[in-house]
Amino acid sequence: MSVSNEIFSSEFTFRLPDWISSVLPDPGHVFCDDEEKMRLAVTLARENVRHNTGGPFGATIFNCDTGRLIAPGVNIVIPAHWSGGHAEMIACAIAQQILQTHDLGGEKMPFCEIFTSAEPCAMCLGATLWSGVRRLACAAREQDARDIGFDEGPKPVDWVAALEERGISVTRDVLRDEAVRVLQDYMDQGKPIYNARKKK
Amino acid sequence: MSVSNEIFSSEFTFRLPDWISSVLPDPGHVFCDDEEKMRLAVTLARENVRHNTGGPFGATIFNCDTGRLIAPGVNIVIPAHWSGGHAEMIACAIAQQILQTHDLGGEKMPFCEIFTSAEPCAMCLGATLWSGVRRLACAAREQDARDIGFDEGPKPVDWVAALEERGISVTRDVLRDEAVRVLQDYMDQGKPIYNARKKK
Repeated sequence: MSVSNEIFSSEFTFRLPDWISSVLPDPGHVFCDDEEKMRLAVTLARENVRHNTGGPFGATIFNCDTGRLIAPGVNIVIPAHWSGGHAEMIACAIAQQILQTHDLGGEKMPFCEIFTSAEPCAMCLGATLWSGVRRLACAAREQDARDIGFDEGPKPVDWVAALEERGISVTRDVLRDEAVRVLQDYMDQGKPIYNARKKK
Repeated sequence: MSVSNEIFSSEFTFRLPDWISSVLPDPGHVFCDDEEKMRLAVTLARENVRHNTGGPFGATIFNCDTGRLIAPGVNIVIPAHWSGGHAEMIACAIAQQILQTHDLGGEKMPFCEIFTSAEPCAMCLGATLWSGVRRLACAAREQDARDIGFDEGPKPVDWVAALEERGISVTRDVLRDEAVRVLQDYMDQGKPIYNARKKK
């Protein structure tokens, strides 16, 4: 397979699935509390499974000052051919495109918070830090994702403290049971669990 | 600022800088050893600084069986408005588009190896695992990046062992001195160091 010629036109585009707009509220909708914000993230995870457009994970980024949604994200790893296509990565990338900055925590930015249907893997833990969000709220625990077979990767044991030391507050277990049901349904349907390999 | 309407057309495209093709060898070129493979990664880092198209980091992914380049990557964080735009992330995403898979270590894939001009940050450590590459070679140490002010994020102390446990062999210090000079030049030129915030 000759591939090298293709790198001279290297670009990469990903898209959110078409069904996304059908589950989002009106643009002016004000989310009133953590549970409502997380419910959208969990709904994205659930609909992503139902539409067969990726793994059982969703994320949402909000302007905490106004209560409005900035960007949604879902896992698109398999359909997008991109192992980096986790829900948090997608939501951060889209929010940064919308706000035209690599740093959601920079000057003149609103207070941005990310809600994820499951605690971050090793990659998304780092990505959360670099994104500039000021707050992370999670539904399912990392152990819940491990329980259905997903590897969360090499995270420090004290990852919550590592975020908080860098100015990102962490809230856990928001709608955990609802998010766990999405993970269980995904496993029960026999959908693909992709992971790093084990040493041979 | 009203942004919510924009999410209904959510997609994200990134491109490698135009100058990239000028530093790549002919598509059929066979790289003969680790130093030659790393030299291209370090050259990408150096040229990225010179062209002012991103941070002082480069990466290259090779087909180890043939010695041919699969994909290059450079840091495009600031120009692309994307905190996830580290060199390794870009190289993995492009390689996966070229090979049309989320798993470079899957069946029928060549043995893929990634060369990076600096050891991975917390995000790229996780991303390396999920990418499916079978080998990671690094030039500058994470401490070298820290020395010029970059935060590497919360990595486990035993991150090399964590990769090797998952079947990814790690080689360090390949052309370390050359890569450190690129980092030093970047700092000496007063170019932007972007990081997570510290707790207030």
